[in-house]
Amino acid sequence: MNRYALSFIILILFVFTSKAQSRKEIQIPDIPGLVTLKCDFHMHTVFSDGNVWPTIRVREAWEQGLDAIAITDHIEYRPHADDMKKDLNRSYEVAKPLADQAGIILIRGTEITRKMPPGHLNAIFITDANKIEVDDWFEACREAKNQGGFIFWNHPGWKAQQPEKTLWWNEHTRLFEAGLMNGIEAYNSDEFYPEALQWANEKGLTILANSDIHDPIGYNYDPAVTHRPVTLVFASSKSAESIQKALENRQTAIYFEDKLAGSQKYLEPIFKASIKIVSAPLKLANKKSGYVLIHNSSDVDFILKSTQVPGKYSYKKDVVLKAHYTTRIDISGKSDDIQNQSVIKLEYEVKNLIIAPDKCLNVTINIPNL
Amino acid sequence: MNRYALSFIILILFVFTSKAQSRKEIQIPDIPGLVTLKCDFHMHTVFSDGNVWPTIRVREAWEQGLDAIAITDHIEYRPHADDMKKDLNRSYEVAKPLADQAGIILIRGTEITRKMPPGHLNAIFITDANKIEVDDWFEACREAKNQGGFIFWNHPGWKAQQPEKTLWWNEHTRLFEAGLMNGIEAYNSDEFYPEALQWANEKGLTILANSDIHDPIGYNYDPAVTHRPVTLVFASSKSAESIQKALENRQTAIYFEDKLAGSQKYLEPIFKASIKIVSAPLKLANKKSGYVLIHNSSDVDFILKSTQVPGKYSYKKDVVLKAHYTTRIDISGKSDDIQNQSVIKLEYEVKNLIIAPDKCLNVTINIPNL
Amino acid sequence: MNRYALSFIILILFVFTSKAQSRKEIQIPDIPGLVTLKCDFHMHTVFSDGNVWPTIRVREAWEQGLDAIAITDHIEYRPHADDMKKDLNRSYEVAKPLADQAGIILIRGTEITRKMPPGHLNAIFITDANKIEVDDWFEACREAKNQGGFIFWNHPGWKAQQPEKTLWWNEHTRLFEAGLMNGIEAYNSDEFYPEALQWANEKGLTILANSDIHDPIGYNYDPAVTHRPVTLVFASSKSAESIQKALENRQTAIYFEDKLAGSQKYLEPIFKASIKIVSAPLKLANKKSGYVLIHNSSDVDFILKSTQVPGKYSYKKDVVLKAHYTTRIDISGKSDDIQNQSVIKLEYEVKNLIIAPDKCLNVTINIPNL
Amino acid sequence: MNRYALSFIILILFVFTSKAQSRKEIQIPDIPGLVTLKCDFHMHTVFSDGNVWPTIRVREAWEQGLDAIAITDHIEYRPHADDMKKDLNRSYEVAKPLADQAGIILIRGTEITRKMPPGHLNAIFITDANKIEVDDWFEACREAKNQGGFIFWNHPGWKAQQPEKTLWWNEHTRLFEAGLMNGIEAYNSDEFYPEALQWANEKGLTILANSDIHDPIGYNYDPAVTHRPVTLVFASSKSAESIQKALENRQTAIYFEDKLAGSQKYLEPIFKASIKIVSAPLKLANKKSGYVLIHNSSDVDFILKSTQVPGKYSYKKDVVLKAHYTTRIDISGKSDDIQNQSVIKLEYEVKNLIIAPDKCLNVTINIPNL
Repeated sequence: MNRYALSFIILILFVFTSKAQSRKEIQIPDIPGLVTLKCDFHMHTVFSDGNVWPTIRVREAWEQGLDAIAITDHIEYRPHADDMKKDLNRSYEVAKPLADQAGIILIRGTEITRKMPPGHLNAIFITDANKIEVDDWFEACREAKNQGGFIFWNHPGWKAQQPEKTLWWNEHTRLFEAGLMNGIEAYNSDEFYPEALQWANEKGLTILANSDIHDPIGYNYDPAVTHRPVTLVFASSKSAESIQKALENRQTAIYFEDKLAGSQKYLEPIFKASIKIVSAPLKLANKKSGYVLIHNSSDVDFILKSTQVPGKYSYKKDVVLKAHYTTRIDISGKSDDIQNQSVIKLEYEVKNLIIAPDKCLNVTINIPNL
Repeated sequence: MNRYALSFIILILFVFTSKAQSRKEIQIPDIPGLVTLKCDFHMHTVFSDGNVWPTIRVREAWEQGLDAIAITDHIEYRPHADDMKKDLNRSYEVAKPLADQAGIILIRGTEITRKMPPGHLNAIFITDANKIEVDDWFEACREAKNQGGFIFWNHPGWKAQQPEKTLWWNEHTRLFEAGLMNGIEAYNSDEFYPEALQWANEKGLTILANSDIHDPIGYNYDPAVTHRPVTLVFASSKSAESIQKALENRQTAIYFEDKLAGSQKYLEPIFKASIKIVSAPLKLANKKSGYVLIHNSSDVDFILKSTQVPGKYSYKKDVVLKAHYTTRIDISGKSDDIQNQSVIKLEYEVKNLIIAPDKCLNVTINIPNL
Repeated sequence: MNRYALSFIILILFVFTSKAQSRKEIQIPDIPGLVTLKCDFHMHTVFSDGNVWPTIRVREAWEQGLDAIAITDHIEYRPHADDMKKDLNRSYEVAKPLADQAGIILIRGTEITRKMPPGHLNAIFITDANKIEVDDWFEACREAKNQGGFIFWNHPGWKAQQPEKTLWWNEHTRLFEAGLMNGIEAYNSDEFYPEALQWANEKGLTILANSDIHDPIGYNYDPAVTHRPVTLVFASSKSAESIQKALENRQTAIYFEDKLAGSQKYLEPIFKASIKIVSAPLKLANKKSGYVLIHNSSDVDFILKSTQVPGKYSYKKDVVLKAHYTTRIDISGKSDDIQNQSVIKLEYEVKNLIIAPDKCLNVTINIPNL
Repeated sequence: MNRYALSFIILILFVFTSKAQSRKEIQIPDIPGLVTLKCDFHMHTVFSDGNVWPTIRVREAWEQGLDAIAITDHIEYRPHADDMKKDLNRSYEVAKPLADQAGIILIRGTEITRKMPPGHLNAIFITDANKIEVDDWFEACREAKNQGGFIFWNHPGWKAQQPEKTLWWNEHTRLFEAGLMNGIEAYNSDEFYPEALQWANEKGLTILANSDIHDPIGYNYDPAVTHRPVTLVFASSKSAESIQKALENRQTAIYFEDKLAGSQKYLEPIFKASIKIVSAPLKLANKKSGYVLIHNSSDVDFILKSTQVPGKYSYKKDVVLKAHYTTRIDISGKSDDIQNQSVIKLEYEVKNLIIAPDKCLNVTINIPNL
């Protein structure tokens, strides 16, 4: 249809350049020796039961500051099949050129979608999704693993499959012991599963937080209100290989709602790299007060609650270190020899940095005192 | 695949009920004898060069307070063809059950997509898009018309096709005189075409404002900032038939950005139905002042600029009647016989109600004076 | 200083007209036979320890949709006294002309400010604050009462005065029994006191929610996030007399954060007057589903949790009727004789309509079924 | 009144600690060798015709990221005089302790408030406002100067004093030639005066942008919509002395609405220090395209319009470098020898960086090309 050629070339350029072309980085800092990559390893497109074309997933990722994504269309559930030609690798292939061009690391993935047990499992870093369409779920996982896949259990506490209680079944033990379950979603869509955090700690699973998005991302995460869930991967560099290695070594934490969850090993350096004391040293004396100014350069409001044992000085019990703001904390001297103390320690529990179900990160902020 | 049956039924219910299920009406009032329907007659899906599944267009419409939409996938431009089975009627058919269930009037449509002249034309109220795939554009339009279609010229000032100037070509005259061009977009996507408003007034075309959306609607119209363009159809009832009749009778206006454009016949009653005086009558006297409180129940901020000739009283020159607020306008007496005047007239031009290129609606607000 | 006259007259007009002159009504409906007045009876100015001129309180009230306010500067605590001439009636007198002009009902008040017990008490509808400056707190209250005052206990659970527990002291019994304590703040500033709600129910006190604002109102209640606390007064008309009578008859409820608290007698008709079914009647059958559309015209998101005993039909368990939106609730038939039931009842607890500590309002929404 | 002592001490602490205690820095970078201080040198309190206590001005300044302010209450216009004890130095003295404690540089100032000519003039860095209460305006300015004051003409185009046209009167020449007019507001409240920018360039006046705020700051500048006007002072250090020296040397620019205005000498380094190329070097070839990613770390959206003469490559004509976002600009090769060009220059006019009435800053962004 040669006749249309000119207008269509123009059309394509127009469509391309008319888009919003700006990206908002997620401000969660790197930690010593590692880069903090922002990733979402669970999402769908029209090629299974999602409602967007694969390139939209890349654009959403770029605009929202992600470094890497995996499109994980269902193998066994494809309600649009009547209108689509069948090839389980297509959503990856359609998205790949734009991902390369935009600098988004696109990881090939798929969702093995079974009733409970074992429920739904994502396999990423695979090479051919079509070959994973196998009747037996164990064999499907084995094929994914043989392709080099990293496999994790999706939404373990999903009410549709675990209506009463979030259970670990024998089938999960079987997969786990065969090396066919390497990670677990402690957060999916808008649900947090504390049990998953517990199991991850006990058994040595990698934790993940993913959107499992089917619709345009704005449907589920209104940017005026919240952000999509993110798996933070602490990698040696920004590359697919480093991400795979980091996932295998459990070098992740999760960022959801206003919270971070993960090992103290990662949350503590994130907290430390996020805050900075920007006021002059204290000159605290008995019955006098001073203050410290703390700037928080991350996107996370840190919600602090004092754990101080009453002593030579007192300070504000409840503090929010608001993201991108400088917060002032007043400190009062309560003893004559406070002047001789060269460092004033503010001891807090960070209520929204979670290191285990019912356990938050404890931090000490050291303030110089002249 | 019987084994999966249970989990999939559960899956479907979950997906369905997890969605946001709330709708925000567009507050632009009915006018005497007619309902004001909010419509968008130009949008795309994965079935041509759009990036969402057709049902998303219905959900977006329902949530954003529309009454009727037409999905108008391109006949001649379908870049996803390699992955989709071909049938130009499918986007309508896929969306129809959800539209029926949600109470959205879905009008069958298509876009005849040619180089300029005549450029792109939408045909809506057709019966079979496949039959409109005809080499000759004039014949394509004739076929659409024979099916009962209403045809309008899309984005007449689109730079990709009219880079220098927005021209009316002989081909448009040919279509128009054959009854194959009934309307024109005076607004498309984020562009206003004053020439289209002019031609519509001169030749008797129906004006429309449509989104021409290809991506998820939130990409182009961030709800925190703006709204999608809307064709207001003044119909005798909320039905497809009434909409078609109203379009044929030029009973439309357009709502875009912070503006309305259209005939005085429609904009004036909208303004009047939107505002209400909620204060007590004035008791104006010379060198005294009083005020009127005006509530604006519409979604449109009305931007008023006084057209008063200085006289027996004065009032605020620049006023914004903010949407959903009550605004106070102070009025001062300037003459002794002001007490004898039973009505004080506030005369304003409404800068964002456009009745012709460079012409705004003039209004008079009558305030009782005791 | 005649020389300056002209420029100052101009100055005053400029200052006056440069202000935002729009008001946002609080959308909480009237109830049968009574108007729902929005009031704040506790606030401060530079005349005691507040930080704004009294007219600011009137302007804030007008812009934020209040009907009536009381400025209640402290009698005993006036840290700006060195710079201000002393007269405890001045904050009322300074604000009164603007209140009259703006149609805000300004009620004369003051705060009797003592250590606990009895703590701080507001007296409103008094006639001369200077005469209430009396050493003995009981005598101060008696004087306020003699002036016609309505007296209420402020922030009964304020940690500064009740650090361990919110106690009712003998002194409160003494005041109460002498008719010198007529109401109690169940909400002050940003604190809710469930004990106050309990005592109000038990003893027959009027409940109030007030801002106790000292700074510009935007400091404590960012309009992008929340609203100021409001005492809803159910009065026979919009007048100071009706408000006083309604307060004496306990015709109030309180509106704070995203909640209403008060007697079922008031909260139920507010809920009913706020919602409207806007969908066609159901045609429910076994194994079929239908839906109802409910529009909420109030400013309050109603948070519903089903209290249904499983039966012939089921419906969504958790629903938010978002303020100013239309919400859809899906209903499924579960029995063959559901067709014969002419009304489908949706039974919910409204989690944010509080009728006693730990008790929410139960509502039934009746849906016609053909 | 000993009895109240305890509760009042507690009260003060409560009031103090209940305030929002967070500060949002204004992100406009330092320039080589100088710090960019954010200042507002024109504001009022209850001590003249303002409506807030002086400490509010300090708190607003701290929270909104200012470094220095001057409270400049009117000498000749004090409508609250009946209620206040008279001392023109009090607003400074009342605010000073909090300013010192909060680290805000508080500069002593006053407003000499006359009819036009010469209109209103601010004198800052004075030592005693009471002594400036002198009948003759020229003598008042001379006294201010003798105290060490820096004097600037306020709102020169204020319609109340210059209804027809913004005129420079003989009186201004007289002041200017006597060294009694050192600066001029090119922006006041919500008005921009291009004439002032012109005069400043021609005569060597320092430009300023100030709020002239009378009400709580949120009244005039809703933080969800805009920011207060700011005088940017390029000083050698953060101190009152450095500010005074910088003002005398015309080392200022102004930040208002979405714009910066001032000398190219300052705007160019601000632009350069705000942006950073974060993408890899280009590898541009004929008929191929590449892109650059530019991060803007300032609070200002830079609105770019291409000034390129068509040549060996082309790039996006209209770009907004959104504040705190990374923006992508696509570049296309148009010639075979583009590969040999080691730097690709993007040439733009920055529409919202104003260096003279009708003249914007031109910038060149250099992109490495391998």
